[in-house]
Amino acid sequence: MSEPLWDALFGRTAAVEATDSRAWLKALCDVEAALAVACARTGLVEPADADAVAAACAKAATVDLHEIGDQAVAGGSPVIPLVAMLRDQAGSAAAAVHRGATSQDILDTAAMLVTHRALAAVIDASTEADGAAARLARTHRDHAMIGRTLLQPAVPTTFGAVAAGWGEGLDRSLRSLRTARSGVAAQLGGPAGTMAGWYPHGPAVRAAFAAELGLTDPGVVWHTERSRIAELAAALGSACGVFEKIATDIVLLAQAEIGEVSEAEPGGSSAMAHKRNPIAAVTARAGAMQAPGLVSTLVSAMAAELQRGAGPWHAEWPALTALLRTTGGAARRLADSLTGLRVDTEATARNLAAVADTGVGLDVGHAGDLVDHYLAGRAE
Amino acid sequence: MSEPLWDALFGRTAAVEATDSRAWLKALCDVEAALAVACARTGLVEPADADAVAAACAKAATVDLHEIGDQAVAGGSPVIPLVAMLRDQAGSAAAAVHRGATSQDILDTAAMLVTHRALAAVIDASTEADGAAARLARTHRDHAMIGRTLLQPAVPTTFGAVAAGWGEGLDRSLRSLRTARSGVAAQLGGPAGTMAGWYPHGPAVRAAFAAELGLTDPGVVWHTERSRIAELAAALGSACGVFEKIATDIVLLAQAEIGEVSEAEPGGSSAMAHKRNPIAAVTARAGAMQAPGLVSTLVSAMAAELQRGAGPWHAEWPALTALLRTTGGAARRLADSLTGLRVDTEATARNLAAVADTGVGLDVGHAGDLVDHYLAGRAE
Amino acid sequence: MSEPLWDALFGRTAAVEATDSRAWLKALCDVEAALAVACARTGLVEPADADAVAAACAKAATVDLHEIGDQAVAGGSPVIPLVAMLRDQAGSAAAAVHRGATSQDILDTAAMLVTHRALAAVIDASTEADGAAARLARTHRDHAMIGRTLLQPAVPTTFGAVAAGWGEGLDRSLRSLRTARSGVAAQLGGPAGTMAGWYPHGPAVRAAFAAELGLTDPGVVWHTERSRIAELAAALGSACGVFEKIATDIVLLAQAEIGEVSEAEPGGSSAMAHKRNPIAAVTARAGAMQAPGLVSTLVSAMAAELQRGAGPWHAEWPALTALLRTTGGAARRLADSLTGLRVDTEATARNLAAVADTGVGLDVGHAGDLVDHYLAGRAE
Amino acid sequence: MSEPLWDALFGRTAAVEATDSRAWLKALCDVEAALAVACARTGLVEPADADAVAAACAKAATVDLHEIGDQAVAGGSPVIPLVAMLRDQAGSAAAAVHRGATSQDILDTAAMLVTHRALAAVIDASTEADGAAARLARTHRDHAMIGRTLLQPAVPTTFGAVAAGWGEGLDRSLRSLRTARSGVAAQLGGPAGTMAGWYPHGPAVRAAFAAELGLTDPGVVWHTERSRIAELAAALGSACGVFEKIATDIVLLAQAEIGEVSEAEPGGSSAMAHKRNPIAAVTARAGAMQAPGLVSTLVSAMAAELQRGAGPWHAEWPALTALLRTTGGAARRLADSLTGLRVDTEATARNLAAVADTGVGLDVGHAGDLVDHYLAGRAE
Repeated sequence: MSEPLWDALFGRTAAVEATDSRAWLKALCDVEAALAVACARTGLVEPADADAVAAACAKAATVDLHEIGDQAVAGGSPVIPLVAMLRDQAGSAAAAVHRGATSQDILDTAAMLVTHRALAAVIDASTEADGAAARLARTHRDHAMIGRTLLQPAVPTTFGAVAAGWGEGLDRSLRSLRTARSGVAAQLGGPAGTMAGWYPHGPAVRAAFAAELGLTDPGVVWHTERSRIAELAAALGSACGVFEKIATDIVLLAQAEIGEVSEAEPGGSSAMAHKRNPIAAVTARAGAMQAPGLVSTLVSAMAAELQRGAGPWHAEWPALTALLRTTGGAARRLADSLTGLRVDTEATARNLAAVADTGVGLDVGHAGDLVDHYLAGRAE
Repeated sequence: MSEPLWDALFGRTAAVEATDSRAWLKALCDVEAALAVACARTGLVEPADADAVAAACAKAATVDLHEIGDQAVAGGSPVIPLVAMLRDQAGSAAAAVHRGATSQDILDTAAMLVTHRALAAVIDASTEADGAAARLARTHRDHAMIGRTLLQPAVPTTFGAVAAGWGEGLDRSLRSLRTARSGVAAQLGGPAGTMAGWYPHGPAVRAAFAAELGLTDPGVVWHTERSRIAELAAALGSACGVFEKIATDIVLLAQAEIGEVSEAEPGGSSAMAHKRNPIAAVTARAGAMQAPGLVSTLVSAMAAELQRGAGPWHAEWPALTALLRTTGGAARRLADSLTGLRVDTEATARNLAAVADTGVGLDVGHAGDLVDHYLAGRAE
Repeated sequence: MSEPLWDALFGRTAAVEATDSRAWLKALCDVEAALAVACARTGLVEPADADAVAAACAKAATVDLHEIGDQAVAGGSPVIPLVAMLRDQAGSAAAAVHRGATSQDILDTAAMLVTHRALAAVIDASTEADGAAARLARTHRDHAMIGRTLLQPAVPTTFGAVAAGWGEGLDRSLRSLRTARSGVAAQLGGPAGTMAGWYPHGPAVRAAFAAELGLTDPGVVWHTERSRIAELAAALGSACGVFEKIATDIVLLAQAEIGEVSEAEPGGSSAMAHKRNPIAAVTARAGAMQAPGLVSTLVSAMAAELQRGAGPWHAEWPALTALLRTTGGAARRLADSLTGLRVDTEATARNLAAVADTGVGLDVGHAGDLVDHYLAGRAE
Repeated sequence: MSEPLWDALFGRTAAVEATDSRAWLKALCDVEAALAVACARTGLVEPADADAVAAACAKAATVDLHEIGDQAVAGGSPVIPLVAMLRDQAGSAAAAVHRGATSQDILDTAAMLVTHRALAAVIDASTEADGAAARLARTHRDHAMIGRTLLQPAVPTTFGAVAAGWGEGLDRSLRSLRTARSGVAAQLGGPAGTMAGWYPHGPAVRAAFAAELGLTDPGVVWHTERSRIAELAAALGSACGVFEKIATDIVLLAQAEIGEVSEAEPGGSSAMAHKRNPIAAVTARAGAMQAPGLVSTLVSAMAAELQRGAGPWHAEWPALTALLRTTGGAARRLADSLTGLRVDTEATARNLAAVADTGVGLDVGHAGDLVDHYLAGRAE
């Protein structure tokens, strides 16, 4: 774990494991191995040499991270020392290492592999949160409560409709995240993006390379056409927005004076024994709040110069890593909050009655239909 | 025009016209009229009353903007004085005005109508830019030039491949923007989002309402599930990233020491007669650079509290307006730059030769295939 | 007014007036006039010619904005057509127009003049808000209420201490804004920033120029050293953060279930007659929420290339304008909310008692001292 | 080190060491120890008990980080398990642990201690960069080169003036960073910010506490008045803007076709033997580009609710940590680039001559004075 004092608190443990230095190194090695295999498939490399490269890659994935990291400074990329190490270890197969590729091919594809793996953690936790929202919507389908607009009592709704609204957001996010994950693409272009090193087999090598890694064949070279990254960022950022909205609602409904929900395991205080903080929702909010700034960084980084960005590209690595982590963490903490969320029916009745006393009608219209719509249409 | 000193310079004229106060007021009036019509379709309102409301709306769209604007302060929404005005004008049909709706239904739907209209300007200019990229790619399919990575000479590519890379980005943006535009949805939920005011015809009223306005029926109430807005923001932000990348490349290739491109109408200087600034690209960059911050604002604003946001919702209005404007402007200026961009074949040859002298090979691999791929797959 | 449907609602009227196209044109003209006067002071220009230039500037400030705006496109700057117009009008004094300057000298200085004027609106409204906070702190110095942490009841504080906390933030902002305003600097460097056109009188011309405009002499050329802009952005952004914190507190304390404060003129609804929305605070929040994204845009724009930015510089104009407006508007709406904020002593007593019943002590420690500290140290 | 594959590459090693989980735990322990000492100074705690607490703190600073981290989840704060551990270890002095404090007192003060320490790394590297800029300015005081505006040749300047411009930015940043560092303040308010637990000695305890830690006594409780954090963010963000500007200039001037500068140790490529990438500047840019988004996150987080933020506060921890790291890293890589930057006098002469041939004059005006101004006024 990268930050043992903080990762569990922010729910980031799984997302950090999928994106830490070791995970990145393993992805880089997997990518170099897949390239050799793909080259072998199209006859550019001898199968035995590809095997030798793959063996060297498997070994390199376990080396001391500082060794690669310290040597990465000179060229601004961990791929350069990694390739040197692989060539050294591959012996007579050295020419089959990194065949035709440029550092960005390896780094971009590794980034996508890391993303593909980290998205699994994000999606798992989101799915758990969605399941909890569905249970709440079903259980409280006809449980009337006061709706609140601009944080003032409005007219009635149901807790089911509120939970269905949360769930519709989670579902929409899940669809986006799954679509994003299934579209995560490999990168293979060579030094100036012309695939010259594999000519005339470039597209075939790229297809085999992507297939070997379980990634999508992009059909193009996207060294400096970064809308794929922006789309991933958008899906993650929008998911965080959905999480923050729900977590904020929980924090608001959990206020003692409202008291309509409470977390199963509220947090205590170092100073106040009576505190019952909705701490999972609070930390989900905190994690989700990191996203807008990170999304803006990744949109800004789209302006990669000419055939390879002189800074914007490198800027993606920490920003994408941080965005995957914080989204995974926020999803995790939100799932913790929603699973086991307790609804206080006395409180909802009391608060509703207080408004009804002012003459507001109790009609909840299509609230039940909203629940049914959500439950029928949930992402599988 | 909203800022006559600046709008033309930033290419925003069309996008501003589609989003200015008058355009918003017209959209608000169109929405109120469509609601009355939709209610009439389901029998909730008399057809004659719907006609009277529509007539009042047409008239209200032309009133003095300050009159509505000044009265909008008290309730924090221009819908409140507008509804009062419409009821006053509708006479005996007053009860058919704003039937069952809440301010957010009208404002959200108007925002989507404004977005739908403004996106047309964005898409038009983007399409023009894409057409120019395609011409450049076709013309220069086999025109070799040096590729540059980290702003240093790398290995050869072709101008066609470079232009195809620009075009692939534009195409991808166009697809996103068109998908976004075709999915722009109406909003209809009533005060607490239960569609109580139209029960049991809520879904039918919403469908008719959306159809009347040429918008999508969302199937849900999204008062505080704002991923639709975040997705629009993402499509616009990503388009700006694509624009900025291309504009940056133009500015870089137009440097006198490189000299590979020039704009048809370079900008002069107030002080230097010899200046030939690629000013359309420069202002496209400046417009595109507004986007990341605005995207982050809109992602942040997703955290709308409970049944209507107490600030986050209102925060969307200026941010979405500004994002539509700046994206439309950047697209416009980029189209200006690309249309008529001149490529200096002597310069590309000279710069390529300088690198070839150092022993770099001249192989451009699949560069021509990249051009063909782009031209074959362009968004229509 | 720039957006008559929205500006009053967001409290931006005064800030928009100080930053609209006319205000910018007037500032540009004031700056050209000041330059001529400054050149005359050092003998570079004949006094009579400076007078002629000043007269031409006064006239140009009133021309049709579209005329300048449309001609600004070609060179990417309104200064180029303005200078042409001034030279035309100045007749025999034409050579005294724009003497030694570059467009950026004029635009940057005009931007600072606009900022200086708009900051007055921001500071006025902030001062009014601070005055209201001080009255609340004084009035409620010893008025106990429950403190709330993580939105859960904690231990007691006083309303006075809460208001003093608001006031300390406002005071700190006011100090920053006043310091920023008093440091707003002129710009004078000439085409490549060497002040060659005024040699050997460059520093003297710059000093006279700044003095003529009531701005600070920066001592340097800051064409591409933009920390001054970032510092302005930071002061405005931090002020918005302070405003948003206070407005959020008001919205939270005004919740019906808490009921400890209410606005003097709460907002109604287009659909719910009983609504009493704290609409001034809500719109203050919405305005303040625009700031973080705009601050990030202005920090990003610091990376101006070489001797004049090819996009980052131009990107400052809309972002700085928008930030001044939204900060001014948020300040205005917050002042509206705080002035006349009503505190419900029954509600604070009831909520405090509910917690006291759980055994929490009622000691408020140094709460009164916090009030006294704030009142004694307020910015004047 | 936190991310051994990346930290050296981005120059973050020192900044990460100052901000990693161990550094944070040590800071938390230092703060708890200082509180006991401060309480002892004012007689609230027995000196022997304070000694026992300090001993327990020294020991706790070395415990397994996962132990604290895992227990931090329940309450959303590492302070809660830390206090439990300290009370356990302090034996009969248990009551002297965390006397009167709330978690936020400890966490905020620890954050400021971590910031104070990390700023030393930022300032050291910035000072080194400034020294290098000064050497370049002095050496090249009268070395003419062409100025470039909008990336097009303009009129002459000198390399000295360009370097002085870089230096003025670095100097301004250094002043801001040093001012920020010297103002880093302790936090002490107790559960609801009334300092009730130390009454009537609150201000005295806070003063002793701050002095013990070498921090500033803020004079106020700033639990939810976060302009201090925004100001730190602004100083760091503005520094990054200065770094990015300089690094961008280096990357641009190092383009082969311009060739006016080169790094002492340019980076190679995994695929192209001839590459000489200005990799230190490139990675400095990448690091600096993280800042605008992080600044926006920290400005957004100012809106902490009532007496303790329910998410905004927690959101500061990862964002401030990331901002300190990336600023420290960008400063380090920029210093690497500037120290040993080589200026090619043939290239500057050649590029200048090419413009002079078009009839542009060679006058550099006050360029030398700009150098002298910078060298005379440098921050010490």
